[in-house]
Amino acid sequence: MSVKQTLLDFNINLPVPFNEKSIMNIKRNITEVLQEMFGTEDSVFEPKPNTMLFFFDKTETQCTVRVFPDGLVTLDVVQYIGDNTNNNTDSYPIWTKVDMIDLRDRIKTRLSCSNARYIPPITRGREICCYRETTDDRIIEYDFDRVVSSEQSPYQHVLIVHSPQFGNMLILDEIEMIAESDLVYTQALLGNGREDYNDKSVLILGGGDGGVLHELLKQNPRADTYYSQFYCMWYSLTPKQIDKSVIDASRKHLRAVCGDSLDNLRGKNYEVIIADCTQVMREFVKEKRRSYLDFQQEIQDLSIRLLSPRGKYFVQGANGFNKQNNLRLYEEQLENLCCPVEFKKEFVFVPSFLELYPFYSFRSVYSV
Amino acid sequence: MSVKQTLLDFNINLPVPFNEKSIMNIKRNITEVLQEMFGTEDSVFEPKPNTMLFFFDKTETQCTVRVFPDGLVTLDVVQYIGDNTNNNTDSYPIWTKVDMIDLRDRIKTRLSCSNARYIPPITRGREICCYRETTDDRIIEYDFDRVVSSEQSPYQHVLIVHSPQFGNMLILDEIEMIAESDLVYTQALLGNGREDYNDKSVLILGGGDGGVLHELLKQNPRADTYYSQFYCMWYSLTPKQIDKSVIDASRKHLRAVCGDSLDNLRGKNYEVIIADCTQVMREFVKEKRRSYLDFQQEIQDLSIRLLSPRGKYFVQGANGFNKQNNLRLYEEQLENLCCPVEFKKEFVFVPSFLELYPFYSFRSVYSV
Repeated sequence: MSVKQTLLDFNINLPVPFNEKSIMNIKRNITEVLQEMFGTEDSVFEPKPNTMLFFFDKTETQCTVRVFPDGLVTLDVVQYIGDNTNNNTDSYPIWTKVDMIDLRDRIKTRLSCSNARYIPPITRGREICCYRETTDDRIIEYDFDRVVSSEQSPYQHVLIVHSPQFGNMLILDEIEMIAESDLVYTQALLGNGREDYNDKSVLILGGGDGGVLHELLKQNPRADTYYSQFYCMWYSLTPKQIDKSVIDASRKHLRAVCGDSLDNLRGKNYEVIIADCTQVMREFVKEKRRSYLDFQQEIQDLSIRLLSPRGKYFVQGANGFNKQNNLRLYEEQLENLCCPVEFKKEFVFVPSFLELYPFYSFRSVYSV
Repeated sequence: MSVKQTLLDFNINLPVPFNEKSIMNIKRNITEVLQEMFGTEDSVFEPKPNTMLFFFDKTETQCTVRVFPDGLVTLDVVQYIGDNTNNNTDSYPIWTKVDMIDLRDRIKTRLSCSNARYIPPITRGREICCYRETTDDRIIEYDFDRVVSSEQSPYQHVLIVHSPQFGNMLILDEIEMIAESDLVYTQALLGNGREDYNDKSVLILGGGDGGVLHELLKQNPRADTYYSQFYCMWYSLTPKQIDKSVIDASRKHLRAVCGDSLDNLRGKNYEVIIADCTQVMREFVKEKRRSYLDFQQEIQDLSIRLLSPRGKYFVQGANGFNKQNNLRLYEEQLENLCCPVEFKKEFVFVPSFLELYPFYSFRSVYSV
């Protein structure tokens, strides 16, 4: 079962704010069009002079009309669509896009609107919620058609949903991580072919989806004598997020991303460590006998210390292209690491993100 | 000025359909939470037992609560946000995402909901409408921030809007055509590097944005002795759409797409013809003294006849990945051209389309 809510907006060419007579006139015209379209209403309510509710019980439809002081008139058409498994929807028509465009155009003509808009319907009450938002708060609707797996791990909700366009998609605590369509994401993280990983040591912080590991293993990185391994571990900024469930879900359901690289947590030249990476990094830094490490320092500080002199750090920005202020804040943070770094930024459109994201790389200026 | 409408959905764990007592209980709980959140309402209406309206005049907020028989409770929070140029919004708080998530969570707890959803807000009454839909009717919201040019030509509405992410975008009669971010679109149309255009003759049907022309000119196509030119013209399936306005708007505002290729409508090895391409094609077919041509035949029939024996036809599918039925219908149409063809299909994610689209190429099987 679901509820389909279509929004229509009208800009009225009348002097604003409306007077009582013009509001009366707008309401009378809309009432007549609604009656043409939906038949006689079963009841009408007028809780405020500028708000009207129509109930068409025979079609399980409610219409709400709101008149705003600066010329905007909004109409919500809310239709209850019962359970498809029984036949209770057969008895009344379900309004289509063509109906709603027709309704919009009739009202537009009747009220001589300068502008009339159809906003595609929101479907409420579906089993899978397909509505998400970009980092700059724009609504997007995914085409998810089924839940592939859903597990509440000790750390987070690990969800895999299927999209016909993007394949299986990993969502952690309501945040989209990666889908099977997103090889360009992994490629961007690896520097889009500008880096030579042959015989290089790599530490992957996070990467529970296995994508970076999988692509890197094709490029023959080194089994480093110092690290003794090439490492992959699950990591996020809160230490709670050290979650083997993510690796398990990815191994099963994101094969297009991780290939067989997560089938064994240990290989010829890699090891997947399930741990809080800050701790592991601290140990590495000690082993390397580097200078005093303040435990409050951020992960990037740890990283820049841990990196070999010519090493680089690669990361996806946490905000999309349109959050320029947040990107600037991040870049300022980079200026305040324990040593000066130079960074590069590249914007990449990852299919399943539906938003343009920056990918950063940085390294110590001393290594340049 | 605008109106911000946030939708919250709740699934209630009570036996359905609800009885009178449980509806009363749901409504009482929601009323209390709304009062905690927004203060005492100025008025409440209950036009139907399962519908409630709250008006909080002090904050220009309306809340509509609807209780549906199968356990879904919907809440719409509609806030009027006045003209930013005067100070009438300073007197009341404008609800943020944090507020709305808080409201959702309070109601979820109070009603012991199994599920509670925040649907990102719809902003109504903005100057530019950013809501569009995919071919399978999913809502998407663009980040358009200004209208670059808008012209009602004799044929259609030629609109160029700006998107921070995608650059300038061409929209014809409400249909998105291409944005400056979309080189992959042009590349896909040209076969993604699988074709060698050097010294080949090309006829572009449509292509008013100049993208295909611009990319092709880099590949040194032939100034064919038979065609005497390499042709580009504006074309669409309805003959009305022969619209120089599109070329003019693209030349000015889509430089990232067309480069300087539209600065002159005639060059060393090309000519842009503003005409109904079906007519031009018919003349070409006559010149080539091919067999009788029925004027009712479709454009693709014309094309396959016009093509040289080893020639190919490239086209973007008119429907996205999720409209498989429509894609099948198109492919059946290809089976009924005047001669048998073989086709190839590639799906490409063009950034500004926010949807996966097929790109087809086909040629006569006799040429294989």
